[in-house]
Amino acid sequence: MPDPYQALLERIKVINKLRAVEELLEWDQLTHMPPKGVGARAEMKALLAALRHERQTSPEIGDLLEQSSADGDPVRATNIRETRRLYERAVKVPSELVKELARTASLGNDIWTRARADSDFRAFAPTLSKLLGLKRQEAEYIGYENEPYDALLDEFEPGATAEEIAGLFAELRGRLVPLVQAIAEARQRPDFSILKRHYPRAAQETMGRKFAEEMGFDFEAGRLDVSVHPFTISMSCDDVRMTTRYDEHYMPSAVFGVLHEAGHSLHEQGREPQHAFTPMGSYVSLGIQESQSRMWENQVGRSRPFWEHHYPWARELYPEALGNVGLDEFYAAINTVAPSLIRVEADELTYNLHIIVRFELERDLVSGRLEVADIPDAWNRKMTKLVGITPGNDAEGCLQDTHWSGGAFGYFPTYALGNLYAAQFFAAAREALGDLGASIRGGDLRPLNEWLRTHIHRHGMRYRAGELVRLVTGKPLSIEPFMTYVNAKFKPIYGLP
Amino acid sequence: MPDPYQALLERIKVINKLRAVEELLEWDQLTHMPPKGVGARAEMKALLAALRHERQTSPEIGDLLEQSSADGDPVRATNIRETRRLYERAVKVPSELVKELARTASLGNDIWTRARADSDFRAFAPTLSKLLGLKRQEAEYIGYENEPYDALLDEFEPGATAEEIAGLFAELRGRLVPLVQAIAEARQRPDFSILKRHYPRAAQETMGRKFAEEMGFDFEAGRLDVSVHPFTISMSCDDVRMTTRYDEHYMPSAVFGVLHEAGHSLHEQGREPQHAFTPMGSYVSLGIQESQSRMWENQVGRSRPFWEHHYPWARELYPEALGNVGLDEFYAAINTVAPSLIRVEADELTYNLHIIVRFELERDLVSGRLEVADIPDAWNRKMTKLVGITPGNDAEGCLQDTHWSGGAFGYFPTYALGNLYAAQFFAAAREALGDLGASIRGGDLRPLNEWLRTHIHRHGMRYRAGELVRLVTGKPLSIEPFMTYVNAKFKPIYGLP
Repeated sequence: MPDPYQALLERIKVINKLRAVEELLEWDQLTHMPPKGVGARAEMKALLAALRHERQTSPEIGDLLEQSSADGDPVRATNIRETRRLYERAVKVPSELVKELARTASLGNDIWTRARADSDFRAFAPTLSKLLGLKRQEAEYIGYENEPYDALLDEFEPGATAEEIAGLFAELRGRLVPLVQAIAEARQRPDFSILKRHYPRAAQETMGRKFAEEMGFDFEAGRLDVSVHPFTISMSCDDVRMTTRYDEHYMPSAVFGVLHEAGHSLHEQGREPQHAFTPMGSYVSLGIQESQSRMWENQVGRSRPFWEHHYPWARELYPEALGNVGLDEFYAAINTVAPSLIRVEADELTYNLHIIVRFELERDLVSGRLEVADIPDAWNRKMTKLVGITPGNDAEGCLQDTHWSGGAFGYFPTYALGNLYAAQFFAAAREALGDLGASIRGGDLRPLNEWLRTHIHRHGMRYRAGELVRLVTGKPLSIEPFMTYVNAKFKPIYGLP
Repeated sequence: MPDPYQALLERIKVINKLRAVEELLEWDQLTHMPPKGVGARAEMKALLAALRHERQTSPEIGDLLEQSSADGDPVRATNIRETRRLYERAVKVPSELVKELARTASLGNDIWTRARADSDFRAFAPTLSKLLGLKRQEAEYIGYENEPYDALLDEFEPGATAEEIAGLFAELRGRLVPLVQAIAEARQRPDFSILKRHYPRAAQETMGRKFAEEMGFDFEAGRLDVSVHPFTISMSCDDVRMTTRYDEHYMPSAVFGVLHEAGHSLHEQGREPQHAFTPMGSYVSLGIQESQSRMWENQVGRSRPFWEHHYPWARELYPEALGNVGLDEFYAAINTVAPSLIRVEADELTYNLHIIVRFELERDLVSGRLEVADIPDAWNRKMTKLVGITPGNDAEGCLQDTHWSGGAFGYFPTYALGNLYAAQFFAAAREALGDLGASIRGGDLRPLNEWLRTHIHRHGMRYRAGELVRLVTGKPLSIEPFMTYVNAKFKPIYGLP
């Protein structure tokens, strides 16, 4: 008698191969597709999405899930559990609602784009209300223990709850706000303008590729291209593609962008090939995914040891911009902390406050404690209180991000969770590997990647994010490693006690 | 009651969208995919091919074909006729044979690659025999009127017959062989070596892009990339991608290569958008497809008027290579005729003789008049007789082409048919447009493209190749326009009477 698990596995692989094809269609569209190709591409993507959805919700999957047994094997258990999670999410929601959500989200994105251009929240409000209503319905169909937000969060950070995140964020907010304020009032200030000098594109590209290679990115199993918004996409652990953008008058954009995307990419390349196209070959959650990018971008890429090694070379690459800049000055500049309005341009500290603003608002929106019409005021008040700066209009306020316009409620917190996971993982790596600073200072980034691969990447979806943190670091997720890290780093830069 | 034709059309579009996705997977593999991605890519391609095959042979298509009526509408008639052709070809052949052919062809390609490297035909012979046997079976299942070769030819040149092609080729051979011989004995000879000087890659790329633009290639609806073997692929008329390769010491490779591929691409971009993903939006046959590339490459790109306009610029682009070369000398060099062993490197005249060698051999192979073991001798004898040169080994003889190793019997003649169609179309265009030479000499290539678009491209598969030729030129296909063209062109270059 054939093993139902094997039959299930075959179906899972088909679904994930279709998804890999969709990833390629998307990558191509964002990097190479000629502009007029967009119409045909939309039809090709819609077809693939429909074929995948059909397979994902097929009753066969349900039957095979009932018959499959893990037999105590953790790989089987993972694949069964995650397939069940997706299957149940998919079949619980009526297909009419799924279609209505897709339509509204697609429309919502267009309306948001125009509303943002006009800085007119009221033009977007009715669509956002509708989306929110549909997402609330979706949450009811999916089900939750404590609050509807959890059902939505589960799509991005499986197993996490709003309550637990709210607890962490409240602590984080309590510790970060005074630190950011102290920094804002510090007399000692980095000269951020040196990063806005002229940095030739070719040198930036050379630098990005070199850094990615040193980190362990395998260019035989991946690529680096250019796109308007940087992203990483993976077809398998042997075909992982990242992008960046080059701004000749803003050095951090490409250089830290590549470190960030290469962090994601190592995470993707670090999966085990035999688990291709299965949950065991996928990442745990967006938060864990983000922990890998932020660790390389910030804990490594914005560290002093990293630049102790690379700064002489950086001065050779950019003699015009950095010829008269010392290492300390450069190190301070790339770690400038300053309240600003736009999330994607925020520094390592205030970024988390931007996220907390969004999390608190969207949680209240989903629960019904906040009305859509009240978003601009609530946004501006929270920004003033947490970040210390007030948006002058909605475009630089509550209309800046695309997420809500596509119905993605529950996505934002994963960004800040990523920072917390990153700090806790990095502290554990340092404990395990001895003087990590010394190897980074020596230009050797491989030990860290090896450690991450062994302890995180190769596990795929075997553990939930919370379990993984406990397993790897011996403790549940907390803000302490992050606070220890930022205090140790930023207080000296700003001359704080 | 829903119109069965509309239901059929929806299914046709799904099949062709899947094919478009496969095209993109292929394009990406040949231009951008990181080398290690090949395993996952093979699985993605196999899945898509299976999904498409399943739909192409679905009994639903058969039922809808029975119920669909063209109602006198030529678009409907075309879509129904071509869908029926593919459906019947697909369902007539047992799926076991299809699978066995796919397996043997895939294996055959590997074995051929090694056999060619070792120049050892005997290593390839058993596989070729097996493939041939399977293709003969396929021909029997598909059915034919005169000879099994016709059933195979139909895949590439629908509606053509071996007999008709043999007639044309016999005439062509009779007229070309003496011309090539006279040229070989001519005292006046071009200096081919000037094309092997140093032509910087960047200048070649500039030239190729400029030529493609002047022809009317829309870079907003297409791309030019680099690959080992040049090709053109199209997802829709709004996303057409061509490739070339750059050899800094052989100028014709990229420059005439781009003219060739841009000819294909204009043909693809010239389809009408409303027919996307249907037979009306596809090309008629490989021969017609090739007529478009060869016309731009040869009738236009290797013409004197074309270079009268562009040569001053060419000398600016390549001062080192062409500084001391006059227009006449250059024009003669790019039209060098010389017997050679390798088809893909052959000139405009002997190319057709290479094709005739292959056509005569493969027709005899399929009919059983020629044994596989006798191929090398037969090949060498024919090459000596037609081209006037004898291969020293199988690698430069009967093992040089990949086609047979993949089971593609009936493909070769479309190359020479393309040259004949091209000449006949070009003569008709000249008649319709007045002095085409003058507009080309003036640097204006658009009138020709417009004419081709109106009379050929936009028709998609509406007419069979033979019908199209009659419709556009008023006469059935003949070798006369080609012979008139080559006599007028080559006799002066070689000082022949």
